[in-house]
Amino acid sequence: MPGEFALIARIQARAAGRDDVVLGIGDDAALLRPSPGQQLVVATDTLNAGVHFPADSAPADVGWKALAVNLSDLAAMGAEPAWCTLSLSLPGAQEAWLDGFLDGFLELADAHGVALVGGDTTRGPLSICVTAIGAIAEGAALRRDGARIDDEIWVTGTLGDASAALAQWRRGGGDCDGELRLRLDRPTPRVAVGRALCGLASACIDISDGLGADLGHVLRASRVGAEIDVATLPASPALATAFDTMARIQHQVSGGDDYELCFTAEPGCRGSIQAAMAACGARVTRIGRIVAPTGLRLIAADGSTLPPGRAGYEHFGEGPQ
Amino acid sequence: MPGEFALIARIQARAAGRDDVVLGIGDDAALLRPSPGQQLVVATDTLNAGVHFPADSAPADVGWKALAVNLSDLAAMGAEPAWCTLSLSLPGAQEAWLDGFLDGFLELADAHGVALVGGDTTRGPLSICVTAIGAIAEGAALRRDGARIDDEIWVTGTLGDASAALAQWRRGGGDCDGELRLRLDRPTPRVAVGRALCGLASACIDISDGLGADLGHVLRASRVGAEIDVATLPASPALATAFDTMARIQHQVSGGDDYELCFTAEPGCRGSIQAAMAACGARVTRIGRIVAPTGLRLIAADGSTLPPGRAGYEHFGEGPQ
Repeated sequence: MPGEFALIARIQARAAGRDDVVLGIGDDAALLRPSPGQQLVVATDTLNAGVHFPADSAPADVGWKALAVNLSDLAAMGAEPAWCTLSLSLPGAQEAWLDGFLDGFLELADAHGVALVGGDTTRGPLSICVTAIGAIAEGAALRRDGARIDDEIWVTGTLGDASAALAQWRRGGGDCDGELRLRLDRPTPRVAVGRALCGLASACIDISDGLGADLGHVLRASRVGAEIDVATLPASPALATAFDTMARIQHQVSGGDDYELCFTAEPGCRGSIQAAMAACGARVTRIGRIVAPTGLRLIAADGSTLPPGRAGYEHFGEGPQ
Repeated sequence: MPGEFALIARIQARAAGRDDVVLGIGDDAALLRPSPGQQLVVATDTLNAGVHFPADSAPADVGWKALAVNLSDLAAMGAEPAWCTLSLSLPGAQEAWLDGFLDGFLELADAHGVALVGGDTTRGPLSICVTAIGAIAEGAALRRDGARIDDEIWVTGTLGDASAALAQWRRGGGDCDGELRLRLDRPTPRVAVGRALCGLASACIDISDGLGADLGHVLRASRVGAEIDVATLPASPALATAFDTMARIQHQVSGGDDYELCFTAEPGCRGSIQAAMAACGARVTRIGRIVAPTGLRLIAADGSTLPPGRAGYEHFGEGPQ
């Protein structure tokens, strides 16, 4: 690839170090020193142009999001992120695009003390693959398979904003509410929240494909069911203003790309959870409970059951699932 | 992506475990238990259809190569591979292609005891991003910056075969010598050789972009120069038969995708290296020496200096560098 080594040098010049990085970018592989007694937590996610983000997205937003979705996976395990690699496929040698991409990517990396330690650049359709590696104490990880009957179900932040932005963007030929769009372009990985939930939550997942789909993974892994009180689902003012109730619920239940955490905990943990979340400055809402009958039931304010609707989530370029 | 979860289930069903994999495919991230006192070695490489392999390649070959190029990076550090992640972008839900891909990928993974512990599948142009993680004792890693003046330069195996196959493939409309093609499609990562070189080699790199380009990285990192005796460059019978001397040398010096190791060592290590390589069943050849004047000089049998020629390597879909 023309300029491959120049592109790598450009990345290397801006990547920050960490004391536990023995050797970062510039050799065949990175050399890292894990902390004694800690387990490794490893997540990999790819973003493709036209599928996971519009091809004309601001490069800084793409950089931010490419790392954010991976840090979100670490957050859902309760891990502390440490290192990442970046594999970048570019249609050509695009220094200006790369500089913008690194602005967003490294802004988020620096905010979480994550060192970019390796990767590669190749020629190809625009695509970004990131691997994030973190650490967690033995036995402390939040898994999907720990939900128990009578546990309460919680979510952080507000739901449906990113999906609503996407719907507006599609309808409006690329226009959408700025606040909603920010949630789509710059999702916040709930790293501090995830770490604070270790020892409190019985199961946890990040909401990337929609509350229904992702909570469904927890239910299947834990072999339980759930009831969600849809009236309790947290909505941002921007979402509540721009959509009627049914559309709002649809985005909150089925919309992806929120990157909030959905977790379960024993009812006795309620006070501890609220205190821990307050200490993180995080909003948290109880939205339902784990029950024995498998599957997910959406309960309206009058006690009736809503139809399940779409469980999944479409990315930008995708057709019906 | 239609069938994303079905594709992941298909991968999960075939991925082997390891004792140090606490949690593999199926949660937000993998949980791994590193060995006490070991450093981590992490490499990431992407292969794109039409750039790194012809779009009509056998899926099993693509799977093999996607892992091989990453294990080769670990080999060049002297590491023992342990785990990998796989991020797969597919134009559609292609179960048959995926099954073939996994045949090759997992054949190589199993041969090296590597557990596939996570990743994702997304819709997009065919692209494969693999991250490989291995372990090495503190201070034992083979780096690029350790070559010293008067060290001897060695390579494993034979050089130029993969590049020669590519040249034939281009000229012949997709036809090429089967032995050469095998070296292009199924490169052998020199994992055992790399491990055996710890404590013997002063610097090491794998040859992915060509001997000239990759040895050049060692020379720059070590701030030294090198002389290569081109008559000593090891050639396979298939290469020697199919190409004249100048074309053969061109492939051996500038051809990429060999995934042999090029390393340096003090002259006093000669016997130990030959014994260690014999124990691995690996061919090894001394091809030159490290000198003080920077840059790479190619020395012909009569003592004259050859022109440097092309330093780099074109992948399938790439234009001139």
